[in-house]
Amino acid sequence: MTTVLKLGGSVVTDKDEPETVDRAALTDAADAIAEANGDLVVVHGGGSFGHPSAAAHGVTDAAGTHDAAGIREIHDAMGELNAAVVGALQDRDVPALPVRPLSVAYRDDGGGTAFPSEPVATMLAERFVPVAHGDVVAQRGAGATILSGDEIVTLLAERLDADRVGVCSTVPGVLDGDGEVIDRIDDFEAVASALGESEATDVTGGMAAKIRALLELETPASVFGPAQLRTFLSGGRPGTLVARDSTP
Amino acid sequence: MTTVLKLGGSVVTDKDEPETVDRAALTDAADAIAEANGDLVVVHGGGSFGHPSAAAHGVTDAAGTHDAAGIREIHDAMGELNAAVVGALQDRDVPALPVRPLSVAYRDDGGGTAFPSEPVATMLAERFVPVAHGDVVAQRGAGATILSGDEIVTLLAERLDADRVGVCSTVPGVLDGDGEVIDRIDDFEAVASALGESEATDVTGGMAAKIRALLELETPASVFGPAQLRTFLSGGRPGTLVARDSTP
Repeated sequence: MTTVLKLGGSVVTDKDEPETVDRAALTDAADAIAEANGDLVVVHGGGSFGHPSAAAHGVTDAAGTHDAAGIREIHDAMGELNAAVVGALQDRDVPALPVRPLSVAYRDDGGGTAFPSEPVATMLAERFVPVAHGDVVAQRGAGATILSGDEIVTLLAERLDADRVGVCSTVPGVLDGDGEVIDRIDDFEAVASALGESEATDVTGGMAAKIRALLELETPASVFGPAQLRTFLSGGRPGTLVARDSTP
Repeated sequence: MTTVLKLGGSVVTDKDEPETVDRAALTDAADAIAEANGDLVVVHGGGSFGHPSAAAHGVTDAAGTHDAAGIREIHDAMGELNAAVVGALQDRDVPALPVRPLSVAYRDDGGGTAFPSEPVATMLAERFVPVAHGDVVAQRGAGATILSGDEIVTLLAERLDADRVGVCSTVPGVLDGDGEVIDRIDDFEAVASALGESEATDVTGGMAAKIRALLELETPASVFGPAQLRTFLSGGRPGTLVARDSTP
């Protein structure tokens, strides 16, 4: 049983304070993960770490840069958050190890992304918990662009043939126009108007982009809030189930 | 023209002081690299950074560990040195980017090592200078083991079909029993007695291991000292040429 878990950047950081870890939230998440069984891959977003420096250098998933110092600044900010997440997990005896996308992922000149999964699979085989993150990666013809944690989740879930995918965000699920959690999504257009536009401050897109990507997966995905992380990790399906066909 | 350059750990660190960068030597090396042309991949060793923590945790290229905290300690020590090397290069406007082997390389249960080179090749195509380092990597059946900078040099030189390989060590070349630089080595046994045993404190082997690995390459390699780095990078062949056949 292989689970790919996304921890939203807004879950583990204080999004209003630059480069600030939300220690209480990170501790809660680490406690829940420490109780989980099976192979687990954790992918976290940037929150107040990656997004400000990416914005400062004008780098998005579509707009690249050849400025090595700028790339390093974004990558180092994400490395700092990654070290906090890996450290919090190791403090709870979770054998977490860092996986830095800049070192392993790459893009072709059409924006197609490859994330070789063998290093992660080897870690899983040895009972480690790989912890990857949204990052800046080299792209042919563009220098380097942003690879979001959400895209890494879908790439790794596919390559690892994951059994379960969980996206832990700050909301208890995907919300409809009335603020109610949608039980299930199998078609983007049916919910597009409720999802609205991506938040402008998040270079990697908001909920709409997440749902589009999750609908491309064979594996059904659950979108839920931090309070439901234990439920998900113990086999439950809290929040919104995103599945492109009727197989539950 | 693709060049793979190894910067010995003993060149860029003070090997007698734990986790201490040799700033003067690193600055000199960065100055020389800033003047080089063509595609360049830099790989550095551990020196006083990687080796002490690897030894403290009993990890070698053959003896693995499942202790995630120990792996992280070794990896972080190497990350600190890598940041110093990348930083020194960027200070001279070399578009250096870090490549962390734990994220990209992996070993099978026979100790065979894979180092996917596409991320590095993508960086090179975009005129970046990837900077990798000896590291600890996941190995099936063993947890994680040491992957030496020397082994990375041979793996990347093969995968990238490098035109030139340079190994910059603290000595001006491979020395014979009288302390004289050997001009050329095409057979390990012919020089084995002169090379002697590996230094016991270096978990990844000394000159003998380097020569064995370099003789496996199609590309001829030059082994030289820091004073000859400019000569090598400008196309010269200082020190000892290690080439397994008679093609120069």
